[in-house]
Amino acid sequence: MEALKRRIQSEGKNLGRGILKVDGFINHQVDPQLMDACGRELARRFAHIRPTKVLTAEISGIAPAVCTALALGVPIVYARKQRPITMPDQVYLTLAPSHTKGISVELIVSPEYLGAAERVLIIDDFLATGQTILGLARLAKAAGATLVGIGVVIEKTFEGGRDVLQPLGLPIEALAIITDMRDGKIVFAD
Amino acid sequence: MEALKRRIQSEGKNLGRGILKVDGFINHQVDPQLMDACGRELARRFAHIRPTKVLTAEISGIAPAVCTALALGVPIVYARKQRPITMPDQVYLTLAPSHTKGISVELIVSPEYLGAAERVLIIDDFLATGQTILGLARLAKAAGATLVGIGVVIEKTFEGGRDVLQPLGLPIEALAIITDMRDGKIVFAD
Repeated sequence: MEALKRRIQSEGKNLGRGILKVDGFINHQVDPQLMDACGRELARRFAHIRPTKVLTAEISGIAPAVCTALALGVPIVYARKQRPITMPDQVYLTLAPSHTKGISVELIVSPEYLGAAERVLIIDDFLATGQTILGLARLAKAAGATLVGIGVVIEKTFEGGRDVLQPLGLPIEALAIITDMRDGKIVFAD
Repeated sequence: MEALKRRIQSEGKNLGRGILKVDGFINHQVDPQLMDACGRELARRFAHIRPTKVLTAEISGIAPAVCTALALGVPIVYARKQRPITMPDQVYLTLAPSHTKGISVELIVSPEYLGAAERVLIIDDFLATGQTILGLARLAKAAGATLVGIGVVIEKTFEGGRDVLQPLGLPIEALAIITDMRDGKIVFAD
């Protein structure tokens, strides 16, 4: 998606060690017009597989997932990292190692909102190591739901996430694919 | 907003002690069409005061704030509760007591995305005790920004937040105003 790539090229910051700072338009400040365009494009790529629910993880997955779900016309569920008091005692919970934080985080979904009849599209801001998305996939499988696809705004291929997710046998779409961030560069796949 | 009130009446759950569970369409699962309608309505009510930025707090403020910002055509910043590694060392930080969690949480905004030239509209899912919104107002003031309004999806008047925010002298808009949740009821203002 050209508008996204241009924005990453002009405003993204390569902080080293593979860390891409996009806090100005995705992760802390959000450009809602850009995010809406990303959501529409992800929806366009996945509409034919008829998702009935979008699944993401709080926090930074919420904005792209809401925009994708809006374009698809289906509900979106975000996995919580802490169990709120409104959640039932019996939940789906999995642990996902966080690369950037160096710890494992819990991903929790209430069975009220993820069921066996759902066709689940996983959406997230980044595909890096793939561990968060793999965790979301485990939650969907625990619920007996059918996984139908994975869509992300930005993929960093050099962190190997696509290989980690390959065994799921799902279509994976990324709107901007970054292949190299060595020496301060930000190199796109095409 | 009638569609919202009908949804709260049909799907909201009064868990007692003033806790309203709206996890099925706002706080865990999100109905993006309803949220978009809420965002458009909040934008309609505040467009005349010309906000240049929407400010909210992660996590559950993000969806309504993104939809409001999309309708207004301005960026949205969500205050973080933990400082990510992409954030500079010097930040705006305030503590906000969390009524439902019984602890204080940090609200953190990078000076990169909140400046003195901004006209800030605060958006959140709930106005209850008002403490989170008051914290966001402190962050905006620390940045030297001009606060122009406060908009929420649901207000619970019996927790006194509107009185807490009154000294700010700002217009406050709520799309659904709940006045009483005693005895399992959910009573709206009109």
